[in-house]
Amino acid sequence: MPKYTDLVASLPATVPFVGPETQERARGRAFAARLGANENVFGPSPLAIEAMAKAAGDTWMYGDPENHDLKQALAAHHGIGADHIVVGEGIDGLLGYLVRMIVEPGVKVVTSLGAYPTFNFHVAGYGGDLITVPYNGDHEDPIALIAKAAETGARLVYLANPDNPMGTVHSAQTLQQMIDAVPDGCLLVLDEAYLEFAPEGCAPPINPVDPKVIRMRTFSKAYGMAGARVGYAIGAMNLITAFNKIRNHFGMCRMSQAGALAALADQEYLQQTVAQVTAGRGRIAQIAAAQGLSVVPSATNFVAIDCGQGDAFATSVLQNLITKDIFVRMPFVAPQNRCIRVSVGRKADLDLLEAAFPGAFQAAKQAN
Amino acid sequence: MPKYTDLVASLPATVPFVGPETQERARGRAFAARLGANENVFGPSPLAIEAMAKAAGDTWMYGDPENHDLKQALAAHHGIGADHIVVGEGIDGLLGYLVRMIVEPGVKVVTSLGAYPTFNFHVAGYGGDLITVPYNGDHEDPIALIAKAAETGARLVYLANPDNPMGTVHSAQTLQQMIDAVPDGCLLVLDEAYLEFAPEGCAPPINPVDPKVIRMRTFSKAYGMAGARVGYAIGAMNLITAFNKIRNHFGMCRMSQAGALAALADQEYLQQTVAQVTAGRGRIAQIAAAQGLSVVPSATNFVAIDCGQGDAFATSVLQNLITKDIFVRMPFVAPQNRCIRVSVGRKADLDLLEAAFPGAFQAAKQAN
Repeated sequence: MPKYTDLVASLPATVPFVGPETQERARGRAFAARLGANENVFGPSPLAIEAMAKAAGDTWMYGDPENHDLKQALAAHHGIGADHIVVGEGIDGLLGYLVRMIVEPGVKVVTSLGAYPTFNFHVAGYGGDLITVPYNGDHEDPIALIAKAAETGARLVYLANPDNPMGTVHSAQTLQQMIDAVPDGCLLVLDEAYLEFAPEGCAPPINPVDPKVIRMRTFSKAYGMAGARVGYAIGAMNLITAFNKIRNHFGMCRMSQAGALAALADQEYLQQTVAQVTAGRGRIAQIAAAQGLSVVPSATNFVAIDCGQGDAFATSVLQNLITKDIFVRMPFVAPQNRCIRVSVGRKADLDLLEAAFPGAFQAAKQAN
Repeated sequence: MPKYTDLVASLPATVPFVGPETQERARGRAFAARLGANENVFGPSPLAIEAMAKAAGDTWMYGDPENHDLKQALAAHHGIGADHIVVGEGIDGLLGYLVRMIVEPGVKVVTSLGAYPTFNFHVAGYGGDLITVPYNGDHEDPIALIAKAAETGARLVYLANPDNPMGTVHSAQTLQQMIDAVPDGCLLVLDEAYLEFAPEGCAPPINPVDPKVIRMRTFSKAYGMAGARVGYAIGAMNLITAFNKIRNHFGMCRMSQAGALAALADQEYLQQTVAQVTAGRGRIAQIAAAQGLSVVPSATNFVAIDCGQGDAFATSVLQNLITKDIFVRMPFVAPQNRCIRVSVGRKADLDLLEAAFPGAFQAAKQAN
């Protein structure tokens, strides 16, 4: 057996999420509606699909390790310099690089209890000491996060705005106050994966020279390209340059680079998607309301349905849906795990949800 | 400025290779022949291109984090169990994970002086102590590598067979002897990226339970899919499972998964590619011979042309070729850097090489 580092030897072989395909293989049956992974069923712009299909023939070439064209386009889109942007293999990949740069055994990191597990996976993977603060209601709590970071001397503090798994959002003003309050020696990881779904006024202005915050964006959500693995981060030049010390320079898929470039250029399609998602959120709320249930107001492409009781009851509803071939997930910890989390689907997906949900809910009620 | 780990703070912001696009932007002119990155210009099977183009429409879904279908197909292809295979983001990505599992400050790692720089990049990136042994002629030296690993107590020893940048190959027997001689507590990283180009008899039988070796394979070279980022490693189950502790589970591009599956199924196309590459190597040798130069016998899709003098002269030849819009690279260290390294091209690419090479060589002679 090879001699692993002590840290790696101490880690469990784990996975932040079990994929739907894994569940399908275990069940021996495909899902009829795939609404569990916050994927965007409306998919990428047809222009992005066309660009990727065209690039398939160029796959013999490595992708540009500088991601030059995509960074230039992103820089123009955001009105900032390209040297404030690093492109990577999804936000997951970028979080891994960032944590590697800053976290080692003994380093404190603050996040919310029940927030994005893949961030926690990376922190554990580099030996960091993860400290959590509870949600405030259904919101991550910027004030408590900053206070905990200051109290513990954390080097990273993580917040997603909009939040996952609850879908709630803070205002730009609240976020700007949080950024301004980040303690010296600490960096705010502001995960804005779902931002394009949120209403105007939820993102503070991008100040690319601010050394207190790194902002993570992605083509996986509103741009509908989860399978392409394209994310980017915006930050101070020193921080962005530091990614070059460790990143997998030739790690980007060439087709994905082409697809992201085309997707970014089609903002009209993005707006159509956002409108469809907004409508879909309303329909999920109606499906819940028909059973007397409320939903957590969402600024994302998913909705947390409050099942009205605790973890066991929500789990029962979820499992009943899965039995009816509807793939959904739910939050991991209390009190959020009173909810199930349903991604917005196409009309046909939500028709299936509408047909399955009453029975799934009523069966859970009878069993509990 | 964020507080980096001491290790990361000490690293340079670097890149193992400067990409051809970067050079094109600096030159202000595209290359006419792209023969420097050991890309396979013959590209993937048409069936793989079709599969990727089709999968572009499914990009809204994450790829299967277990890479189940591809692992099953690879297991059948190699006649081993799927639990001895890990699929990752190219060999580069897998090398990064492997080094992270085993290397930390103070850990010794042995490789050949002038061998694959990206491996060295990862070793440096995790604070390892890289120890090099010289080539023996134009071959990596298995006996010296093992002796140095034993002497230093190295935990990893790296060898590519066939070798990059020289293109030479060892026999299966030599490699089996090397595997058998790996010291306790050490792991042989056998990088077989170019294996499909080599003649029969250059790979020892795969023994998936052997804990002394991990074998790295890729779809980037003979399968013509460098831009798709699909590699895999074969090893003992304990080692393969350990990748799950740290890998980016959702890191694989869904289109690339589909493409690799289709490419693997088209072994006939692979054999056509290998035949074309073999012919192309012969033509590069002829182009060199016309100037009185010899080449290093190659078992890969590239050829090291021995320019007959030292580093400065070979660099001059290389730069003259680049001026003539032929992208090539060369080894980094002596004595290999008496050569330039030319990837096999299509007929049109090699026509350009044939037209440019005499002038590039003669100009170097006149200048030196």
